[in-house]
Amino acid sequence: MFDILLSDFDNSEHPLYLQIYKQFRDQILNGIIPSNTKLPSIRALQLQLNISKTPIETAYQMLSAEGFAYSKPRSGYYSVNMDEFNPFKKKKESNLLLNSFQYSDLSVEKKFSIDFNPAAVDKDMFPIRTWKRMLNNVLEDFSQSIGQYGDMLGEASLRKALADYLRNSRGVLCSPKQIVIGTGISYSISLLTKLVEGTNYIAFEEPGFEPVREQFLLNGYKLIPITVNRESFQFKLLEKSKAQMIYVTPSHQFPTGRVMPYAERKYLLNWADKQNAYIIEDDYDGEFRYLGQPIPSLQSIDQQGRVIYIGTFSKAFTPALRMNYMILPIEFMSKLQKMKHSLSCPSRIDQWAMQAFIEQGHWYRHIRRMRNKYKRKHHKLIECIQTVFEKKVEITGHNAGLHIQIIVKTKLNAKDLLKLAADKGVRVYDFHQMWMKPNESGYPQIYLGFAGISESEMEKGILLLKEAWGSILYE
Amino acid sequence: MFDILLSDFDNSEHPLYLQIYKQFRDQILNGIIPSNTKLPSIRALQLQLNISKTPIETAYQMLSAEGFAYSKPRSGYYSVNMDEFNPFKKKKESNLLLNSFQYSDLSVEKKFSIDFNPAAVDKDMFPIRTWKRMLNNVLEDFSQSIGQYGDMLGEASLRKALADYLRNSRGVLCSPKQIVIGTGISYSISLLTKLVEGTNYIAFEEPGFEPVREQFLLNGYKLIPITVNRESFQFKLLEKSKAQMIYVTPSHQFPTGRVMPYAERKYLLNWADKQNAYIIEDDYDGEFRYLGQPIPSLQSIDQQGRVIYIGTFSKAFTPALRMNYMILPIEFMSKLQKMKHSLSCPSRIDQWAMQAFIEQGHWYRHIRRMRNKYKRKHHKLIECIQTVFEKKVEITGHNAGLHIQIIVKTKLNAKDLLKLAADKGVRVYDFHQMWMKPNESGYPQIYLGFAGISESEMEKGILLLKEAWGSILYE
Repeated sequence: MFDILLSDFDNSEHPLYLQIYKQFRDQILNGIIPSNTKLPSIRALQLQLNISKTPIETAYQMLSAEGFAYSKPRSGYYSVNMDEFNPFKKKKESNLLLNSFQYSDLSVEKKFSIDFNPAAVDKDMFPIRTWKRMLNNVLEDFSQSIGQYGDMLGEASLRKALADYLRNSRGVLCSPKQIVIGTGISYSISLLTKLVEGTNYIAFEEPGFEPVREQFLLNGYKLIPITVNRESFQFKLLEKSKAQMIYVTPSHQFPTGRVMPYAERKYLLNWADKQNAYIIEDDYDGEFRYLGQPIPSLQSIDQQGRVIYIGTFSKAFTPALRMNYMILPIEFMSKLQKMKHSLSCPSRIDQWAMQAFIEQGHWYRHIRRMRNKYKRKHHKLIECIQTVFEKKVEITGHNAGLHIQIIVKTKLNAKDLLKLAADKGVRVYDFHQMWMKPNESGYPQIYLGFAGISESEMEKGILLLKEAWGSILYE
Repeated sequence: MFDILLSDFDNSEHPLYLQIYKQFRDQILNGIIPSNTKLPSIRALQLQLNISKTPIETAYQMLSAEGFAYSKPRSGYYSVNMDEFNPFKKKKESNLLLNSFQYSDLSVEKKFSIDFNPAAVDKDMFPIRTWKRMLNNVLEDFSQSIGQYGDMLGEASLRKALADYLRNSRGVLCSPKQIVIGTGISYSISLLTKLVEGTNYIAFEEPGFEPVREQFLLNGYKLIPITVNRESFQFKLLEKSKAQMIYVTPSHQFPTGRVMPYAERKYLLNWADKQNAYIIEDDYDGEFRYLGQPIPSLQSIDQQGRVIYIGTFSKAFTPALRMNYMILPIEFMSKLQKMKHSLSCPSRIDQWAMQAFIEQGHWYRHIRRMRNKYKRKHHKLIECIQTVFEKKVEITGHNAGLHIQIIVKTKLNAKDLLKLAADKGVRVYDFHQMWMKPNESGYPQIYLGFAGISESEMEKGILLLKEAWGSILYE
C-alpha cells in the first residue's frame, strides 16, 4: 500500500530520515494513507529499503512528534485522522501583521479609496534606477568583503559620508565615530535604554510618538508627560519633575507639527546642562521644511554633549530600507564597547550602496527633489482645505514634515469624524494613541499625511471629506 | 578680509545660517582667517549681505558652540587657534571597529598572510549575478510597496518561503506566523529577553558562544555553566540547577564542534517539559554536515513547544546581509503583539529578494553548492593536518560546520601556540573568551575555520603551522 521508494531519494539535498518522513507525511496529508492505518513496522521498512534502523526510527518519531502519526504500545505507528489535524489552528491565530504605525482603530476590513497615511512616503519618487546601479556596483566593488562581518556600529565609510552630509545640510557636527547605523528608531531606543543606566524618569511630549513611549514603558521607565500645545512646551512641568532624560521632536513635533522655537531649544539645553540630563532629539522628518527660517537642531547648538540625535532614511528615502542613525555624545562610546554583543545593523550591502549614493551626490539631488515635491504637495493640500472648508477647519502643524494637523469646528469628536470619513472611503487619523491621557475638551484634531498620495487623490479626498463632514461643521 | 559672498549661496540646498557658518568655519579651518582674529560684527555682516540678523546670529552661535570661534563680552566673536582645536581628539579615541566575532587578543596591528577565521565564509561562492537579478527584479516588482512600512516580524511571503525550506530541508515544522525575521543573533536574543519574563537563570554551554552569553549577562540574567566535553553534556549540573532556560548549539557545538546525540536531545526535551523551561536551539551552521547520519533538530522532535529555534543566513549565504530568523512557540505570539514597538527587521527589499531566491529554487542549489564546496575544504583540511602533524595533534569537533577543533600535544599553552603561529603570519584561534571559567588543564585546544580560505592557502597555512610548532610538539 505504501510507496516508499529509495529511487525517489535525492541524497545531496535531504537526509534519509527526512525523505522517509516527508513521503509518509505527504501520503497521510493527501489521504493516500487513510486515517488510523497501521504504518509498516520499522523492521519491514528496513528490509524493504535495505537501510539501517536509525533513519526510519527518526522519521517515525518525527511523524509522531508532529502529529501525523501516533504510536500504540506493542503495536506500532498509525496515521492520524487528518480531519482533526491542524497543528496551527489549535490556538486562535493572532493577527501578527504588525506595522510600525498602527494609527487607527478602524477595522482593517474597511476599504479606503484614499488614505492620508502620515507614515507613507511618495513611492514614485524612489530612485529605482540609480539605487539598482548602486547595488549592482557595490556587489562587484566589495565582493572581497562579502564573506565577512562588518563593523556592528555601521560601515566606517558610510558613517564618514553621513557625518559630511549632516554637517553640510543639517548643521549637525560629529565625528563619524559617534554615529551608530541602525535598523530603525526602535533599535536606537533599545540601545539607548542599555546605555543610560541609572535613568528612571523620562520626560515625554504629550501628545508624543507612541511607539517610542511604549518601548520606554516596556523597559520599565517612568514617563513624565510634558504637555505640548500650539503656544508652548510646558517647561514648568519639566523643571518640577525628576526627569533625567527627555524625548523631543523639535523640527516638527509629532503629532502636533509644532516647530520648537530657538529660545525653547536654548532653554532645554540649559535644563539638560543643569540637571546632567540627556535630550533625545528625534529629527524624523527634519529634512522637510517649507516656510520660514530653519532653526538649528539641538545637536548643533549643544555645547555640553547632552544631545542624542536620531535621524532616519525612512522619510527622505524609503521606509522599506529599514535604515537609520543615531549620534551619541562622545562619553557613551566607551560604554558602547562593552555592549558590542547587543549591536546589530543593516545589511552591509545596503550600507555600501547608501555610502556610494551619498558620495556620488545622488543623495543631495534626491533630497532636493523630494523637498520640492513635498513642498508642492504641502501647499496643494493646504490650498485645497482652505478652498473647500474655508474657516470651518483650522490648519496647524504645517510648514514642515509630511503631515498636517487640522482642528475641525464641530461638536462631534474625532472618532465620529473618522467614521464619517471612512463611510466615504477616506482615511484620516486622530492619533488618539499618541496621548497618554487623552484630553477631550476643545475641537477635535485630525491628522492628514500628504507624502504618500497624489495631488489629484488629495483633491478628491478633501472634497469627499467635505461631503462627509459638511453638515456637522459650525459656520 | 573675509570673503562671505551671497552669490555663493545655494538656496535650494542649505539654509542661510548654515552657509554663513560653513564659509566662516572653512576659512578658520584653512587658516584663511588667522587665529584670535575678530570676526565682522553681526551688524556689519547684516549690511554687507543685506539679510536679517537671525541667520548671522545663528551661524555665530554655531561657530562658537562647535569651538571654531569664541565670544568676548562687549567685543564680539573671535576665531580660535586651530592648532589647539580638535573636537574629536579631546577624549582618547576608542577603537570602535567592532566585529561580532573578536576571537583573539592578538594585536590587530599584526599582519596575517593566512587567517583560519572561523567567522568568515567563502566569498567566491556568493552568487553575485543571481542576487543582483533578484534585487533588480524586486525593485521593479514591489515598486508599489516601497513607500510603506512592512510587517515588523518580517515579510509574510518570505516567512512562508522560509517555513517551506525549513520543513523540507531541516525537518523544522512551523507556521510562517511563528517566524520572526531579524538582523542577527543579538537581535533575536534581545527580543527573547523581553519575551521570557520571570526567567532569571539560564543554563549555558561551557565553553559556549560568548556574544550570546555576554548579552544575557548584560541583561542581568544569572548564567549556569554546563560543561560540554567530547564525551558528554553534563546533565547532572542542569538537573541540580535552577535554570529556566538553556542555550544550546546541538548541530555543531560552538566552539568544540561536538554534535549532540539523539538520546541527549530527547533527554533535554524531557527536562524542559518537566521544568516548564525553554530551550534555545541555535542552529547557526546546521546546514553543513559532512559525515554520518543527520540527527533531527530539537525543534523537530519537540512535542510541547519548548524549543525556540534560531537560524541564520550568515553562514550559508553571507554575513554581510545581516539576516536571520527565529521560530517561536505559538504561545509567545500574543506576547509579541504587545511589544510590537520593540521590533525591527532587515530591509524589505532584501527580504523580497531572499523570498524570490528561495521560491525560484536558487537557495536550494546554492546550499548544495556550498555544502559540496565546504565538504571538500573540510576533508582537505583534515587530510593536510593528518599528513603534516600525524599523531601530534588530534582533530575533534569536525564532520560538521565551518570550523574544527584540534588538540595540540605540547606543554605550551594556547596563547603561546597562537603567538608562534602569528610569527609565521598564520592566524589561528584559541577561543579562550568562550569559557566563563577557563580550564588550563590538559593539552591546549586550537580552532581553525576553513570556509573563508582557499585550499592552497590551507595547505600553506598548515605547513607554516608545522614550522611554527614542530619543535615543541610531543612525539
